[in-house]
Amino acid sequence: MKIAIAQLNPTIGDLTGNAQQILEAAQQAASQGVRLLLTPELSLCGYPPRDLLMQPAFVESMARILQQLAEELPPELAVLVGTVTPNPLAFQEGGKPLFNSTALLLGGNIQQIFHKRLLPTYDVFDEDRYFEPGFRSSVLELEGTRVGVTICEDLWNDENFWGKRNYAIDPIAELAEVGIDFVVNLSASPYSVGKQKLREAMLQHAIQTYQRPILYANQVGGNDDLIFDGNSVGFDRQGKMVCRAKAFERDLVIAEFAPDKQDFVVEQQAIAPQPENDDAEIWMALVLGVQDYVRKCGFSKVVLGLSGGIDSSLVAAIASAAVGAENVLGILMPSPYSSDHSVNDALELVKNLGIHHQILPIGDLMKTYDQTFADLFAGTGFGLAEENIQSRIRGNLLMAISNKFGHLLLSTGNKSEMAVGYCTLYGDMNGGLAAIADVPKTRVYSICQWLNEKQKAEGRGMNKLSSSFILHLSSSQIIPANVLTKAPSAELKPGQVDQDSLPAYEILDDILCQLITYHKSPAEIVASGHDSATVDRAVKLVTRAEFKRKQSPPGLKITDRAFGTGWRMPIASKWIPTSTT
Amino acid sequence: MKIAIAQLNPTIGDLTGNAQQILEAAQQAASQGVRLLLTPELSLCGYPPRDLLMQPAFVESMARILQQLAEELPPELAVLVGTVTPNPLAFQEGGKPLFNSTALLLGGNIQQIFHKRLLPTYDVFDEDRYFEPGFRSSVLELEGTRVGVTICEDLWNDENFWGKRNYAIDPIAELAEVGIDFVVNLSASPYSVGKQKLREAMLQHAIQTYQRPILYANQVGGNDDLIFDGNSVGFDRQGKMVCRAKAFERDLVIAEFAPDKQDFVVEQQAIAPQPENDDAEIWMALVLGVQDYVRKCGFSKVVLGLSGGIDSSLVAAIASAAVGAENVLGILMPSPYSSDHSVNDALELVKNLGIHHQILPIGDLMKTYDQTFADLFAGTGFGLAEENIQSRIRGNLLMAISNKFGHLLLSTGNKSEMAVGYCTLYGDMNGGLAAIADVPKTRVYSICQWLNEKQKAEGRGMNKLSSSFILHLSSSQIIPANVLTKAPSAELKPGQVDQDSLPAYEILDDILCQLITYHKSPAEIVASGHDSATVDRAVKLVTRAEFKRKQSPPGLKITDRAFGTGWRMPIASKWIPTSTT
Repeated sequence: MKIAIAQLNPTIGDLTGNAQQILEAAQQAASQGVRLLLTPELSLCGYPPRDLLMQPAFVESMARILQQLAEELPPELAVLVGTVTPNPLAFQEGGKPLFNSTALLLGGNIQQIFHKRLLPTYDVFDEDRYFEPGFRSSVLELEGTRVGVTICEDLWNDENFWGKRNYAIDPIAELAEVGIDFVVNLSASPYSVGKQKLREAMLQHAIQTYQRPILYANQVGGNDDLIFDGNSVGFDRQGKMVCRAKAFERDLVIAEFAPDKQDFVVEQQAIAPQPENDDAEIWMALVLGVQDYVRKCGFSKVVLGLSGGIDSSLVAAIASAAVGAENVLGILMPSPYSSDHSVNDALELVKNLGIHHQILPIGDLMKTYDQTFADLFAGTGFGLAEENIQSRIRGNLLMAISNKFGHLLLSTGNKSEMAVGYCTLYGDMNGGLAAIADVPKTRVYSICQWLNEKQKAEGRGMNKLSSSFILHLSSSQIIPANVLTKAPSAELKPGQVDQDSLPAYEILDDILCQLITYHKSPAEIVASGHDSATVDRAVKLVTRAEFKRKQSPPGLKITDRAFGTGWRMPIASKWIPTSTT
Repeated sequence: MKIAIAQLNPTIGDLTGNAQQILEAAQQAASQGVRLLLTPELSLCGYPPRDLLMQPAFVESMARILQQLAEELPPELAVLVGTVTPNPLAFQEGGKPLFNSTALLLGGNIQQIFHKRLLPTYDVFDEDRYFEPGFRSSVLELEGTRVGVTICEDLWNDENFWGKRNYAIDPIAELAEVGIDFVVNLSASPYSVGKQKLREAMLQHAIQTYQRPILYANQVGGNDDLIFDGNSVGFDRQGKMVCRAKAFERDLVIAEFAPDKQDFVVEQQAIAPQPENDDAEIWMALVLGVQDYVRKCGFSKVVLGLSGGIDSSLVAAIASAAVGAENVLGILMPSPYSSDHSVNDALELVKNLGIHHQILPIGDLMKTYDQTFADLFAGTGFGLAEENIQSRIRGNLLMAISNKFGHLLLSTGNKSEMAVGYCTLYGDMNGGLAAIADVPKTRVYSICQWLNEKQKAEGRGMNKLSSSFILHLSSSQIIPANVLTKAPSAELKPGQVDQDSLPAYEILDDILCQLITYHKSPAEIVASGHDSATVDRAVKLVTRAEFKRKQSPPGLKITDRAFGTGWRMPIASKWIPTSTT
């Protein structure tokens, strides 16, 4: 019995378009003799639909389009489609009005409904806001084969794997008890660095425990700040991988279940390779995140400011891979404080990537602001206000170009500076999407180095993992060498470098990771080997910068804890712990 | 037996300061012979603490300071303090690591702990993110009197009152069954228009059902986007009010419980009046919201742009009442497109309020931007890009003043324009706080009219409800008459008025309310009597403006559904329903 995983890239709320994606995958699967097709969690509306679920008209449209889809699908193919369904008992018994469900479409009808049992309410997840948990796990019977149907989080409660229980119930244990031949899981599991290794280890642990094969179907694509990496995967009863869909791309993979062996058999190699290392993986994630945000927001071109620094250089490279160099416009906005190399480095990058560019010097604008403030600022020295004016002039120029020509503006700040507030609100923070807002500065360097090495090694076809991620370059280099070696600087006053105000990025990034991702206290961070004054200062800067992050564009999430929908901090707060309290 | 409600205004995370507030209230209560003191929900850390709860050091500090507080409190006074406590079973049984609790402090010790049972996960609430629900309701026994202790949402599940069940269990019903003399509730219930009427009706309904008196202690003060209105209240067994604390102010009220009568008795009138109407109520809410945000963020002065329009006029008046006219700086930034009256009206407002002002014309800056773009924009006409440049010049000027002199910038956009995107990101949207972002334009007018009538009627002491809300004015008028009568205009091009692009605000606001607050479909809104083209256009504008709202400052919430923490919409979404689909 052939079972296929359709690793789809839905657009949130595009019910018709998403149904069409499912239909096309089903037709392709049917033509290859597939009996059961899996699609990702909430494949009909895309994940996460968020507060669209509060509109009754949205939920009603889903029901209508699901019914239509059932009628259009090849009738002999069983298709599991992610959708929401009403909770009929919500009104009299209390509880949320919807279930996060999977519908079995077969023979022109909706044959069976399965409900998600474990609802995540941590990090970026708010499922208790919308959904009631399903009260039992159900089995799909197909030609005598019993399939345990689970949805995403349902598999994430293996107390031996995690070292603790996350939820009171464990759906896979219950399914194993009622008797199943294998488990399928419909997921929308967002990317973070190394997530696929974790998923595969977790699935293999579950297989070891319950001796049941698992097929895991994940969503792919970028939806606002979240990137879904795909990497749908199947394992046989021994925990051996039988299929894996591509990372960061739409795909359809087929696995063969042999009822007599009660196991999957490998007929042909259908295991897509993994990115070669973390830098490669993050690169692919960011390219997909930018590509999908631009496309799903209805844009085709992007603009960004090029300072000659490493952050904007990386974002320009990502953008070129995401939407094509011909659709990228880099704006150089030198000031009297800009070094010569900042313009030269940016121009070299423009040439390396083959993107469009414009040079708009901001000296005259700076002078006019000075004149405007001549009386009001008389007697005050050059300071933060004057530095920020420059950044906001550039922000205004970039937005004007965005407004005039319809380019989406990408902001170029990294996670380290977003953390400590080393960025100007309404200035360099401007943009529709913050492409590398969750990438620490040290990682920005390592990705750029990898990019250059890769380009040197492979020439024109930069990343052979996937055709979507190739940069077509005439140059043998991507990021100019000087960009990688010079001291990072905002160049907002003469001779300024980042390390005037901040500790070395190797130190800062380690402190930030402990603080942000692992919730360590200043005392614990100091105990790990950092200087207490440096730690206390970093903690204070992070706390004080909350108001800036509140107003930042969506930033593509690549770590376990990003400053996005999963970061919910008060602004007017007096909690600033120190290493001595 | 005297029971007091300490209606406190905690600062989020200021554990020491909040404990001090509780201690002072307790000392005051003890000196008046009070036996039991109630404080609001999570009174030790302030509500909502959000992701601070994920820092173990924060939770440990709370435990330490709670213990200290227990030792410092008058030993004979029983004090209920809102705090978090660890869930010891989380690790092995699954579940969240904390409870939202109330600690009974008495005789120098923590005597008893009560857990919140119903955890809200709608609108602005995310309590399932942090807390495990308590598994039973508990009784506090004091001198033979049995007090049922509940926390906020625990009382919000009266299915007869709401017409539906919200949760499976009903703590007050359980308490009534085990036998109690009265109920206390520790709340942090955010303000929205008319909320107190709803609360009082709900409490009276519960009293009617269970025949038990209720004392309800609410938090007061502004915390980021949320305003807590206080209005703590007590009812006797017949549903008659026995006490009510002030609206929008710290307060301490005492009620006398007569164990022989098993009821509260009214010894002296301790019922604070309610604001005279919705305009007055919203005014007080906004003044408190601005005041607390400024103070809790460590500022004392504010700056704002004055266009001569009604929005900035209202915000200037709110700011004057919140931080004192002497701490308010209004900036006039006329352009060649500004009408004469815009400057004159703004100057009249400055004079009426007695605030500081500066005039910074932006014509030269506009010219310099034009010159900067001369080549790049050659051949294109004046349009949105040029309009936005003006707004962003003003935004840059205001932020430079904020950075230079340490004033907090208030943005002045109303809810109607935030909804349809009739505002410039990084321009007039700039600010640390959006004071009237949840106030529809029609309500902006009615508040201004009420303000002027009030001033006319009462002269210098504008709002006699409370000394915190008085504007000390020499003028008999607040908002200049011309501001109220002229056609609203952004003045970004010659002769522009809002109604060139938008329907009349009476129509728009009704459409927006149906769409945003009540989740009505375009078809339903049309059926209520609106033109279909107008409705479809409004829906499209609202959907398309999501990217702007994502980057807006916190806006003070005054309606049941604000564009703040309780509005979670995808940006890259294709769901734009129309009245014909």
